[in-house]
Amino acid sequence: MAEITVLGAGSWGTTFAKVMADSGREVTLWARRGSVSEAIERHRENAEYLPGVRLPDTLRSTSDPRVALDGAHTVVLAVPSQSLRHNLAAWSSLLPPDATLVSLAKGVELGTLKRMSEVVVDITGVDEDRVAVVSGPNLALEIAQEQPTASVIACRDHDRAVALQELCTNSYFRPYTITDVIGCEIGGACKNVIALSCGMATGLGFGANTLATLITRGLAETARLGAALGADPLTFSGLAGLGDLVATCSSPLSRNRTFGARLGKGETVAQAQAAAQGQVAEGVKSCSSIRELAQRHGVEMPITEVVHRVCHDGFDPREMAGELIGRKTKPER
Amino acid sequence: MAEITVLGAGSWGTTFAKVMADSGREVTLWARRGSVSEAIERHRENAEYLPGVRLPDTLRSTSDPRVALDGAHTVVLAVPSQSLRHNLAAWSSLLPPDATLVSLAKGVELGTLKRMSEVVVDITGVDEDRVAVVSGPNLALEIAQEQPTASVIACRDHDRAVALQELCTNSYFRPYTITDVIGCEIGGACKNVIALSCGMATGLGFGANTLATLITRGLAETARLGAALGADPLTFSGLAGLGDLVATCSSPLSRNRTFGARLGKGETVAQAQAAAQGQVAEGVKSCSSIRELAQRHGVEMPITEVVHRVCHDGFDPREMAGELIGRKTKPER
Repeated sequence: MAEITVLGAGSWGTTFAKVMADSGREVTLWARRGSVSEAIERHRENAEYLPGVRLPDTLRSTSDPRVALDGAHTVVLAVPSQSLRHNLAAWSSLLPPDATLVSLAKGVELGTLKRMSEVVVDITGVDEDRVAVVSGPNLALEIAQEQPTASVIACRDHDRAVALQELCTNSYFRPYTITDVIGCEIGGACKNVIALSCGMATGLGFGANTLATLITRGLAETARLGAALGADPLTFSGLAGLGDLVATCSSPLSRNRTFGARLGKGETVAQAQAAAQGQVAEGVKSCSSIRELAQRHGVEMPITEVVHRVCHDGFDPREMAGELIGRKTKPER
Repeated sequence: MAEITVLGAGSWGTTFAKVMADSGREVTLWARRGSVSEAIERHRENAEYLPGVRLPDTLRSTSDPRVALDGAHTVVLAVPSQSLRHNLAAWSSLLPPDATLVSLAKGVELGTLKRMSEVVVDITGVDEDRVAVVSGPNLALEIAQEQPTASVIACRDHDRAVALQELCTNSYFRPYTITDVIGCEIGGACKNVIALSCGMATGLGFGANTLATLITRGLAETARLGAALGADPLTFSGLAGLGDLVATCSSPLSRNRTFGARLGKGETVAQAQAAAQGQVAEGVKSCSSIRELAQRHGVEMPITEVVHRVCHDGFDPREMAGELIGRKTKPER
């Protein structure tokens, strides 16, 4: 019977399970495939997602969700954003009453245009005060290597955020608490789209000036969308806004940036997808739902618009620079 | 008789002169050494500071300040921040009346703790409405290569900012106007110090999470100082705050970041200085004046404090991570 259950053994789920185990907690990590959970139990390694990282001896792993969830007071959801609804529906009846539900997923659901915490409330019917999200400059591999990292835990119920903060603070992981769940989730979703644009710029051969401009203007359009949805504008200047965005846009470890770089070099989405073992970067999907959300709220998001056109309308990324720099001169705001 | 005079033929002065010449303006570039101005006139290259970049045929160069300044309506000051006072004192009597004075220098003067535009007003006695500053994510070499770049022109007199904007807008350089000179200058000065800390983290082997955290918290302490001095907080979310900071902290072209990386690898300030052809990075000086300015205004700047201790008190950068991550857990703001 574990205190904490992490559902999903990808790189971030496995890393967050390690963080909490290293904070002295009893953690069970659920993996979809029995081969993965068995390898973690036997060899203390998730070779597919975190090769070379030794997992703590106290970390348990299973592929049985019933075993994983039995008695947990904290349930961490670490599955891809577009499959969260489907997965959670299957787990819903197994969730212990009163458990804190923690979302690690970053995205906006296609079709419903819901944030991940909204999807959680939708499926489980829990009060939104019971749902927390974790975000920030958190490239999984670096945390797994125990590099010092700051993070953000957002929950409308501040006491619950503080309780979760205590569960995962250790010598290399430093979480801060905020109550702005909307800002935290919008920052996390939009950064994948901006990272695609930064990747495209890099693929086209542009340097740090262009990257910094895309990050700055990308954060500005993210904050505009957040404000329209009721987020606190200050969240976007913090670790879950600026911090997450800079980490994702500047690291070669970022899947979205890498995917964008392939598009910038002239590959099609299908070619870039093939190179990524068949996986489409999260931002390729999110750019459509975020664009739709922005349109619904009358928010201008020129970078998201260009990324959407490149990913879904066959627009040539080489046109991007002209599109973004050629507009009429004006005051910055 | 040129419309525009740029005083200082380092990499940024030469690049900005090229930008304005490429915008169709008559520009004269003053270089301290006759060998540099002659080489520019003859070979259309400033081989020392911008090797490989062909300068426009319309760009004139001289080492005589009297010739350079004759009849100019716009004078661009492109000398190092700590020598601006001394240089400007020598040029003061040559400045045409009513010319716009544009500062490209980034720093806070040691001793007086004045921003560069304040030094300009101090020496020349002009009204501060006549002084503009240019800042943003503007690594000189990338602009010289004509990569698309956004920038910020700040002047209390908005019409003057717009006039200057017209002088330097071209196919690869896109300036925005703002009226917040204080925010623009504080952003430009502090970013050098934060870049030193990012360099140290890189030299110590840390990755994108740490870098993003230093950038985020570094911008927060910069904005705190700016607010205490009367800046508009929104400036720090813009190109002269976030944009400049991200460009400087993420590019291997940045002198401050490179200098910091040497310190992070265990070199002393003297060793890093020797490796940089005897030059100390601007942030090494500015961290002292910025720290003093912060103390005078009761502003906490923990990253600047650590950088100062490493650069001037023999503090070991390896202690930096522990110093910054080991504090008590708390809300983000």
